[in-house]
Amino acid sequence: MPTYKAPVNDTLFVLNDVLGLERYNNLPGFADATPDMIEAILGEAAKMAEEVLFPLNYSGDQEGCTRHADGTVSTPKGFKHAYDAYREGGWIGLAVPQEFGGQGLPYTLHAAVCEYTSAANMSLMMYPGLTQGAIAAILAHGSDEQKKTYLQKMVEGTWSGTMNLTEPHCGTDLGLLRTKAVPQADGSYKITGQKIFISAGEHDMTDNIVHLVLARIEGAPEGTRGISLFIVPKFMVGEDGSLGARNGVSCGAIEHKMGIHANATCVMNYDEATGYLIGAENRGLNAMFVMMNEARVSVGLQGVSVAEIAYQNAVAYARDRLQGRSLSGPKAPDKKADPIIVHPDIRRSLMTMRAFNEAGRAFLLWTALKSDIAHRATDEKERQTADDILSLVTPILKGVMTDKGFEHAVMAQQVFGGHGYIEENGMSQYVRDARITMIYEGANGIQALDLVGRKLGLNGGRAVMALFKEIGDFCEENRNDEKLSFFTKQLKKGLNDVQAATMWFMQHAMAKPDNAGAGSTDYMHLFGLVVLGYMWAKMAKAATEGLAAGETAREEFLRNKLVTARFFMERIMPETALRKARIETGAETMMTLSAEAF
Amino acid sequence: MPTYKAPVNDTLFVLNDVLGLERYNNLPGFADATPDMIEAILGEAAKMAEEVLFPLNYSGDQEGCTRHADGTVSTPKGFKHAYDAYREGGWIGLAVPQEFGGQGLPYTLHAAVCEYTSAANMSLMMYPGLTQGAIAAILAHGSDEQKKTYLQKMVEGTWSGTMNLTEPHCGTDLGLLRTKAVPQADGSYKITGQKIFISAGEHDMTDNIVHLVLARIEGAPEGTRGISLFIVPKFMVGEDGSLGARNGVSCGAIEHKMGIHANATCVMNYDEATGYLIGAENRGLNAMFVMMNEARVSVGLQGVSVAEIAYQNAVAYARDRLQGRSLSGPKAPDKKADPIIVHPDIRRSLMTMRAFNEAGRAFLLWTALKSDIAHRATDEKERQTADDILSLVTPILKGVMTDKGFEHAVMAQQVFGGHGYIEENGMSQYVRDARITMIYEGANGIQALDLVGRKLGLNGGRAVMALFKEIGDFCEENRNDEKLSFFTKQLKKGLNDVQAATMWFMQHAMAKPDNAGAGSTDYMHLFGLVVLGYMWAKMAKAATEGLAAGETAREEFLRNKLVTARFFMERIMPETALRKARIETGAETMMTLSAEAF
Repeated sequence: MPTYKAPVNDTLFVLNDVLGLERYNNLPGFADATPDMIEAILGEAAKMAEEVLFPLNYSGDQEGCTRHADGTVSTPKGFKHAYDAYREGGWIGLAVPQEFGGQGLPYTLHAAVCEYTSAANMSLMMYPGLTQGAIAAILAHGSDEQKKTYLQKMVEGTWSGTMNLTEPHCGTDLGLLRTKAVPQADGSYKITGQKIFISAGEHDMTDNIVHLVLARIEGAPEGTRGISLFIVPKFMVGEDGSLGARNGVSCGAIEHKMGIHANATCVMNYDEATGYLIGAENRGLNAMFVMMNEARVSVGLQGVSVAEIAYQNAVAYARDRLQGRSLSGPKAPDKKADPIIVHPDIRRSLMTMRAFNEAGRAFLLWTALKSDIAHRATDEKERQTADDILSLVTPILKGVMTDKGFEHAVMAQQVFGGHGYIEENGMSQYVRDARITMIYEGANGIQALDLVGRKLGLNGGRAVMALFKEIGDFCEENRNDEKLSFFTKQLKKGLNDVQAATMWFMQHAMAKPDNAGAGSTDYMHLFGLVVLGYMWAKMAKAATEGLAAGETAREEFLRNKLVTARFFMERIMPETALRKARIETGAETMMTLSAEAF
Repeated sequence: MPTYKAPVNDTLFVLNDVLGLERYNNLPGFADATPDMIEAILGEAAKMAEEVLFPLNYSGDQEGCTRHADGTVSTPKGFKHAYDAYREGGWIGLAVPQEFGGQGLPYTLHAAVCEYTSAANMSLMMYPGLTQGAIAAILAHGSDEQKKTYLQKMVEGTWSGTMNLTEPHCGTDLGLLRTKAVPQADGSYKITGQKIFISAGEHDMTDNIVHLVLARIEGAPEGTRGISLFIVPKFMVGEDGSLGARNGVSCGAIEHKMGIHANATCVMNYDEATGYLIGAENRGLNAMFVMMNEARVSVGLQGVSVAEIAYQNAVAYARDRLQGRSLSGPKAPDKKADPIIVHPDIRRSLMTMRAFNEAGRAFLLWTALKSDIAHRATDEKERQTADDILSLVTPILKGVMTDKGFEHAVMAQQVFGGHGYIEENGMSQYVRDARITMIYEGANGIQALDLVGRKLGLNGGRAVMALFKEIGDFCEENRNDEKLSFFTKQLKKGLNDVQAATMWFMQHAMAKPDNAGAGSTDYMHLFGLVVLGYMWAKMAKAATEGLAAGETAREEFLRNKLVTARFFMERIMPETALRKARIETGAETMMTLSAEAF
């Protein structure tokens, strides 16, 4: 039977010991997030994840969603009930300003909570997850009237939200999109076109669905400069907030997917549906990017979540399954065989997953804290630096943690041997669910291009220089501490590799941009290794300090942190040299063959 | 719509130009395999794969197998018909000696054919695939009477075969198995127990099923030394070969799996079923290993197959899908966007897959040729050397080509973006099907242990020294050829790494065996890279010679070989240094945590 336990102690270690959240209590909402409060909230979130969401994960996958002849969609048994519990717990609005019905707590805390809930039931959590993205876009770009009309209900969760970008012929290249918007006399628009891959596009959980839709106003310029963003509610909303007639939007089909079966991925047909412009005309991509950036952090989070639940199940199996004897002599001589956790190759797998999960959690929360600072700090410079780094690392968090999330779900499944291939044991679902995270919200190749082609050069490389400096300073400050010097030395090697690769791009990709594209995925992973290595070095420092302070209650926990940090630096970090070598081979060979020759 | 075309020209290049099959026409069966004959057979196999097997691949996955209340199992629509066409074509016995109804052609040719048929329909091909393994075991260990009773029908394909090893509590560790065999007065045995994960255990394609079953004769020693192998026919066979009563073996359930839905994976219940000892008492594992070694080559082959079909579909999509513009300026200015094959990151993916597929095909056929030499050469020394290398590389072929087969099925799926996640587009099936190849016939961690713990040290390291010498000699002989020196130099670096890692094991794993286990998976992949690099160097040499001979008809084909060889050496080969570095960190860190600490 699959199992899940929210790693509350590890989250607390990151928030309190590594990030020192208390130091930020001058930020709005942070003063309320005292250590006790955080622990209480995480405890409640853990209960919600373990007891309400997780028990429906496997059954939801097996049952999937059903579209009925009238275009309505049913979610799996128990989903609405669990969603209501989540909604009523106030979780959707945890970090939304109080004036819109939220609790105004740190987004960092929200991210910590979502790691648990997404691990417990990724498909279910996508319904409120999409709502949160839509809330962010309306908060950033909506008019006061739009905020008043939609936000309260969405924060309550009685209405949900969606993002409508993709069309059959256009995914990454949104400039090709054809959905059209015709202006009406009353200031609204009639929206017509087809959108595909719309997560939570139609379902039975909420009274209304607020679709955010990219479309082209008649006569607008071609390409990405002629795209606007519209709010298209499923049911029309009266001035008093009451629901009126059905709008001209409907679900034409739900997709038959490899995973996330319990989330309805819809083909949405817009047939002169009434829509309301949000943000400026032809600036829709700009507004949509607010949602996308937040969504990309959330998808990176899903990578961490699925890797964590897969790891926990692999550990449980490895402790329990008896097979063969330890190479160094029997460890369970009273039994017919040893548990497979004694075998080094199983250890290698478990330690690899563990090393990424713990650093991934730190990376996620560190990124979320940058987002809080970028949005809430009073000091302009502090806000800007945080925003720079947030913007730089978002594609890394998304691309690396989902590539690794999937790879490690596969690794965890492998621990089960043949039993991992049987659906009832749950591991297949983690693999199938994890697979989508590498694709949606911008396939990982696009994340890598975003990093190399856009984020690196932004403002003269201000962000990347700031982050390299932060990591370099950390190495420098701690290199003479004998307890930390091993970690900082390995981290410095990785930092040197990513700096050299960055320099290589500057020298070779300006004149020949294919050299940037050819190395982009390797660069994203190289950078990811360095950021994760930085997280491990920070965690090693926090653990060392905790041990030095004589923390007996957490002694084993802190010692294990140091062991896992060492494992990461020994086994994982050397990959930076390979990534750098690949980048430096450039594009020439791979671009030689004609398209017909493949 | 998914597509598949058997890569006949590439196979011919490997067989004729790289392996020089004609040089072996002194071996039994090889004289019949003239170049013209080989081309004709591959052409027929391609037709069978493309026109008969492939059209049922997706529908078979969607429909799956059905177990009925009476324990019978139906395969998907069309499967029996396609199987009959395959059977009637005489493909099962292609390499079986003529005296047992086969055609006695080279096993190498059989492997070439199976690459196509497995790519076209892996699930369907497992039915005759298991039969071939059973044939091999009966050929090697059966009595004359057993051969007479079973082989003809199995070679014809009117009876099929299975391998019954795994029990619920015992997979890798066969010493734990409990199925018991009670001797009867007539020399037969009554077999009782439960076997799980039995591929093709029950189905509607053949008149009889010949189960090969591991069981423990009453009073036999504990552990692996007390295991015997039995033939248990589904229907009893009369002296005249006619079918009699149903034996006491039945399918209790079929598994609900992540993939290979069209192959019936059965729970088989043995209830005093009549069985016949094959080979010597208590030497069952020995006999089973004949099947397993052949089966491991076949599973490595499946890795190549699934990677090839996934690659072909990714190529087709990348040529067709219009999205974005080339970084170096529009390539299809008449269209709204360029085909995505212009993007370097897509090229990187396609070239990576291609480089592994072409080298994987060469590795497979080179290994198969070793098997032919080991079984058919008249010179004892030649047989022994071939057998040594076959035995050494079998776990590498199985482990590396299936890890890569899966990884590259995922990579091919990624090229499709969101469309890759939709079942109808076929990519999900390749990923789900490929996943089992890393698990069955010994999970890849077990292959790595077999390599490091058993194969390396066999006969004082005779096999590994012979192979290192063969590769080293190749580098030495060609290092002054300026057209080849780049390739041999890179190959030599890899060879140095695998030699150093081997030395490290000798120095550090004798006293502390966990050091071998800790590095085993990295070592298997390191060794695999070197063997694949060797294949690329050999292919580069053959291509260079072809070009020098002025082969105009194949000029582009041969030039593309050199480009792909270069890509492999530039981008893939440097991974050997990382693998070596990981091995040399040893087991200490990963073995530190207590089992409870995970």
